[in-house]
Amino acid sequence: MKPIRAELLTIGDEILYGQIIDTNSQWMSAELDKAGIKIIRMTSIGDEEQEILTAFAEAERRADIILITGGLGPTSDDLTKPMLARYFNCEMKLHEEALKEVTAFFNSRGRELTETNKLQAVLPVCCTKITNPLGTAPGMWFEKNGKVFMSMPGVPHEMKRMMIDSVIPKLKEKYKPAAIVHKIIRTIGIGESVLADKIADWEKALPPHIKLAYLPSIGEVRLRLTGLGNNEILLNEEIEAISNKIIPLVGEYIYGYGEEKIEEAIGRMLRERSLTLSIAESCTGGYVSHLVTSVPGSSQYFLGSMIPYDYQIKMRQLGVKPEVLEQHGAVSEATIIEMANIVRAKFNTDIGVATSGIAGPGGATPEKPVGLVWIAYSDKHHTVTKKLQLSTDRLLNIKAASVALLNLIRTSLPARHVG
Amino acid sequence: MKPIRAELLTIGDEILYGQIIDTNSQWMSAELDKAGIKIIRMTSIGDEEQEILTAFAEAERRADIILITGGLGPTSDDLTKPMLARYFNCEMKLHEEALKEVTAFFNSRGRELTETNKLQAVLPVCCTKITNPLGTAPGMWFEKNGKVFMSMPGVPHEMKRMMIDSVIPKLKEKYKPAAIVHKIIRTIGIGESVLADKIADWEKALPPHIKLAYLPSIGEVRLRLTGLGNNEILLNEEIEAISNKIIPLVGEYIYGYGEEKIEEAIGRMLRERSLTLSIAESCTGGYVSHLVTSVPGSSQYFLGSMIPYDYQIKMRQLGVKPEVLEQHGAVSEATIIEMANIVRAKFNTDIGVATSGIAGPGGATPEKPVGLVWIAYSDKHHTVTKKLQLSTDRLLNIKAASVALLNLIRTSLPARHVG
Repeated sequence: MKPIRAELLTIGDEILYGQIIDTNSQWMSAELDKAGIKIIRMTSIGDEEQEILTAFAEAERRADIILITGGLGPTSDDLTKPMLARYFNCEMKLHEEALKEVTAFFNSRGRELTETNKLQAVLPVCCTKITNPLGTAPGMWFEKNGKVFMSMPGVPHEMKRMMIDSVIPKLKEKYKPAAIVHKIIRTIGIGESVLADKIADWEKALPPHIKLAYLPSIGEVRLRLTGLGNNEILLNEEIEAISNKIIPLVGEYIYGYGEEKIEEAIGRMLRERSLTLSIAESCTGGYVSHLVTSVPGSSQYFLGSMIPYDYQIKMRQLGVKPEVLEQHGAVSEATIIEMANIVRAKFNTDIGVATSGIAGPGGATPEKPVGLVWIAYSDKHHTVTKKLQLSTDRLLNIKAASVALLNLIRTSLPARHVG
Repeated sequence: MKPIRAELLTIGDEILYGQIIDTNSQWMSAELDKAGIKIIRMTSIGDEEQEILTAFAEAERRADIILITGGLGPTSDDLTKPMLARYFNCEMKLHEEALKEVTAFFNSRGRELTETNKLQAVLPVCCTKITNPLGTAPGMWFEKNGKVFMSMPGVPHEMKRMMIDSVIPKLKEKYKPAAIVHKIIRTIGIGESVLADKIADWEKALPPHIKLAYLPSIGEVRLRLTGLGNNEILLNEEIEAISNKIIPLVGEYIYGYGEEKIEEAIGRMLRERSLTLSIAESCTGGYVSHLVTSVPGSSQYFLGSMIPYDYQIKMRQLGVKPEVLEQHGAVSEATIIEMANIVRAKFNTDIGVATSGIAGPGGATPEKPVGLVWIAYSDKHHTVTKKLQLSTDRLLNIKAASVALLNLIRTSLPARHVG
């Protein structure tokens, strides 16, 4: 059967000039792929009338679905809406419901609607308005000769919410794409090539209608199994059976499935065990705490953190013994053990964890290079430490050390019945 | 005068399926823009013969320069080289110098050249080989009717080296492009449409060769002026004069120019004043500290943070008076003032700042809805508070409150001579 074909069209000079990176296209194509819709092309064009009209016509010739982002602001350089009106040859009019939504959006923030804001509610009469719960520019859904043009704001969180709540469900309803089943297996603490070696035989034995992709990110590799077929139930069972066969090979590195991130998995494990957590983070500078608190409901198990960035604060506020710091330095196993134990005691939590390292670019010595990080986990049963040697990139080191600490929590927590 | 027009063409299924993000295009367009070459379109297509040939022909009709990345590996799904040979109608032949380079590349890494590797040195006879010092796939430069097709590997560091060493110098020599000048004005704490209203007359008065774009992100709007002309020095002066005229209109919202982010601007301002900072963050959960410590050298002015997420920790660890918490609640002006003052005193810093709010989705009451956040700034001269009403999205609230706090630091810091 013929796949449903979609194109992504990004409008805005800021991408063409290299001033912002287009992260929307990757997110959208991954989501559409999961929905069984094939992306055949991604195009970025600038804020120019003729370019936009030509791109619309070209995309319409090739694809069933044209998803447009960007160029929806209320200012004069935003051309997407007037060009869509011209392309579909229909007039623009104030949309009463859209106006109510924009007004409510401003009121909820205690702000007055300006004349410029009001223009956001003026839409081509031939489109269906799609609500934008997180912003002021509504989405616009056009249909013509069985093809769909869908225009969304370029602001990532507005676009994502609109895609998940409205656009993908509407596209699935209209096109009823073939069954695609994805299963994501989330691994952590193992590199892509070592992982590939360990599962090479299993990968070779995959049937032709089930494909495997490696999706690496900082500290993690997700494995995605994708099956294509006519019977979704059978396909689900088959993928389930195949994914179970990987557990004897790399089970210790698997922390979850699907969309659950490591910080969410940690939250689930802490809740299941009724345990509380506190954090003393130095080189990660707040990023571990940010990951932990990005999870809704984290206040159930996360009580607080100390970020003793400065040497004096490590002693005076956190309470690391001066002789330990003087003898071993801030980036050492002795200090990291102190940090994890002290924060656990001070904050009166079941678990205390800590980071200390040299994120770079400054602060290195011959014995302690940029990228050297110590992490520790402490509970009433044991204290576990780990030494990491990361990269020379500051932000990468902050993120990789944070993910490594979350993984240390995962592997060090007591079994469920013990907690 | 007509600008030199370039298109970027990325070939490879992995980008279309959303498995990797295309960072090359942003880097290339920023570099080409600096060289005075205008990018008119970026396109990503998959590993399909007909798609590739069609994209070549379309790009040739529109642009002077077509820069191609990806699809140059030695495996059968890499189609760029055979499609270029077919498009330019010329045969493929072993290129002796390319073979020497590939052999030397392998030898330098102590590896033997395989038959598959050797294929990397087989090139269409109608191209000029461009050396790839960091990899095995040479670049290929084609000319036809005054237009240039340039094919490069998709591996970012190989492409970047080739662009800087060979491609951009060759393009400048061939096309002698006109000058393009950009200036970015960074504003914070003012919405896009209010900003647009305030500068409407200034915007209308811009000469036709200077364009304005609004680039919004969470809590910020950057304004980009782009001028095109023959004399770069005069153009720079003109843009400078125009950008100065905006200061009387919205100067209080401008925190910097160019690439400097708000957390970098705060760092610069603190260093200039020799002031130190500590943070007590509750609802932002570490994100403010992460932004501050993402800046290299932040340990010069940032001493540490406390994240008193739990109610008890706010009292026992930070030291907020129980009667203040009981009477006003954790999310209140009285508590936020305490938090900022106490962290400043405890950490012995010049400045203390704090956040407390309801990030959501839980924790709201009728009087204190999701998105309500109090922020505070404290130094020896004064304490400044601000109440925010943000959105219903947890992550957005965390980020928007953090940016608002950084802006509160900016607007509350003593003037330079006082510090």
